[in-house]
Amino acid sequence: MLKLSRTLNSFSAVPIRSMSVLSTYLKYSEYGEPVGVLKKFEETLNEPENDQVLLKILVSPVNPADINVIQGKYPEKPPLPAVPGNECVAEVMACGPNTKSLQPGDRVIPFVTQLGTWRTHALFEENKLLKVPKELGLVQAATITVNPPTAYRMLKDFVPVKRGDTIIQNGANSAVGQAVFQLSKLWGIQSVGIVRNRPDIDDLKSFLLELGASEVLTEEELRTTTIFKSGALPKPKLAFNCVGGRSSTELLRHLDDKGVMVTYGAMSREPVTAPNAALIFKDISFRGFWMSRWGRENLHSAVRREMLDELIEIILCGDLKEPVHQMIPFEDWENALKGATNFTGFSGGKYIFDFRE
Amino acid sequence: MLKLSRTLNSFSAVPIRSMSVLSTYLKYSEYGEPVGVLKKFEETLNEPENDQVLLKILVSPVNPADINVIQGKYPEKPPLPAVPGNECVAEVMACGPNTKSLQPGDRVIPFVTQLGTWRTHALFEENKLLKVPKELGLVQAATITVNPPTAYRMLKDFVPVKRGDTIIQNGANSAVGQAVFQLSKLWGIQSVGIVRNRPDIDDLKSFLLELGASEVLTEEELRTTTIFKSGALPKPKLAFNCVGGRSSTELLRHLDDKGVMVTYGAMSREPVTAPNAALIFKDISFRGFWMSRWGRENLHSAVRREMLDELIEIILCGDLKEPVHQMIPFEDWENALKGATNFTGFSGGKYIFDFRE
Repeated sequence: MLKLSRTLNSFSAVPIRSMSVLSTYLKYSEYGEPVGVLKKFEETLNEPENDQVLLKILVSPVNPADINVIQGKYPEKPPLPAVPGNECVAEVMACGPNTKSLQPGDRVIPFVTQLGTWRTHALFEENKLLKVPKELGLVQAATITVNPPTAYRMLKDFVPVKRGDTIIQNGANSAVGQAVFQLSKLWGIQSVGIVRNRPDIDDLKSFLLELGASEVLTEEELRTTTIFKSGALPKPKLAFNCVGGRSSTELLRHLDDKGVMVTYGAMSREPVTAPNAALIFKDISFRGFWMSRWGRENLHSAVRREMLDELIEIILCGDLKEPVHQMIPFEDWENALKGATNFTGFSGGKYIFDFRE
Repeated sequence: MLKLSRTLNSFSAVPIRSMSVLSTYLKYSEYGEPVGVLKKFEETLNEPENDQVLLKILVSPVNPADINVIQGKYPEKPPLPAVPGNECVAEVMACGPNTKSLQPGDRVIPFVTQLGTWRTHALFEENKLLKVPKELGLVQAATITVNPPTAYRMLKDFVPVKRGDTIIQNGANSAVGQAVFQLSKLWGIQSVGIVRNRPDIDDLKSFLLELGASEVLTEEELRTTTIFKSGALPKPKLAFNCVGGRSSTELLRHLDDKGVMVTYGAMSREPVTAPNAALIFKDISFRGFWMSRWGRENLHSAVRREMLDELIEIILCGDLKEPVHQMIPFEDWENALKGATNFTGFSGGKYIFDFRE
């Protein structure tokens, strides 16, 4: 006899007798500009079978990488046709008979990449989901798997950084940059952020200093700063680069001997130049970081589980705030994606699809 | 009562009653082109005192870095005035009363950098010298502290390379390149060397294949080779770059995911370009290596002693040949330095000063 779906038995918090929902979703069958290749569809999802879990998606962010995936410009290429979207937070509506750990009413986030989250409802396998506390804010939960872990791993995995040491980063108002400032502050690390000049630069500086930055400089100010020469701050041991080109060269100039520059983005689309003297005589390393790869390589590792537990705890303690964002009803997906396609990565804000009615 | 100098007591292999030698040496008091700033001098050296050792220098190589030091273009800047020269092999003539391990007749090499070896005789402190077996050839001994250890450390310290794995290197006929081929062969590692095209390319390829290279390609051949795509050789995990610029970009194209490019020279004077996709998505690292720094940081370490012992054993077994070189009597120092200043690093040969009469 088949085990009954858990929605139908007494374990269910909210017993549901017959489960059938209409899911609205986006889909693309060829790579291209999102507004051109994405179409909206509907399908009926029935009761979850085996280890499936029926989800109601609550919110899902539009990350720059999501756009690159749809454009076919990203190394992760889901088999086509595909539903876009990589991160979300969802509520469990029903669990298949072979599920083990989830219950209707639980909040979950994707445990793997490229599940396809831009849909109102989904049937996913239980082992591709991670339960998170309901106390986490919706945006906090929906944006926890990419940017905070990127900041976390870059601070931990490249060169030992102790309390009082300095790190420096460009594109410092990005979602990762904001997480870097907050984690650095929490761990006693001094952080210098570099941003492009702009009309509201004073507001931006105040915002980032408030988050935890020790110093925020424009690209121009970095060229003439004496904060490292004067000893006001120790020379940075670690630089995080999401811009490339000249901006990374300027970061490099201030790096301490044996320092490491970690590239995790390339907003300028220019490569990093590694001068021979920096490599040979200063023993500076040029490394890269990509969360998707790290996640794949450490999928079921204790270190990944511990990191996510620690990040959740940090967020619940109020030490890691959600990124600046704008909620967009899912019906307005075309306008959101038009805006996101022009996203430069410097605005520090991101669109979040809201699937709740 | 002072302990008598060991040359005067019965421990001396060749007792010498009164020690006084005339040393001929080069000296520079300002940085510049070697032939312009170097002058020849003579001085009388008396019996060694305390922990001093009186040496008769036998041979000393002219390394490209020696020229850069005299030009003031090297990070190591000996206090001026200075005697040039970094490597040599010498014979101990007499030992001061507080010396512990050396005896007259011993062969020694410098244990530290920039001692100033371009002189016929010298008084150095015992702890700045390392005894080597007399069975070592003079050129082998005089060139053992920079190039073979560079090859050794680059093969060991950056990424695990097991038997059957591949490494790739440009400027492959340099002294380091020759050592890389020989150590790779000894350790079962496949090695691909890249050289510039030249009239006698077939002879050069034969010479390097004979040394141990698995494959030797010109820069042009590298651009279209299919040896890695076809699976004839596994993709390299490690690349050694002493050229920079476009040559390093071509090496990079063939590197396996998670590969490391180690830069130890810059013959083209062009920087290394680190493409963002290589850093982020292929997880390729760009590192540097400088033997002088490594030597300083590991001066008295067991790992340095073990490496030198192992290299001496490898040489004595015939598995690491001395580099192609040309002996030059010390009297002809001006002509040798004129030639060395135009040294491009690609000839694979080097001048060795011969101080023996």
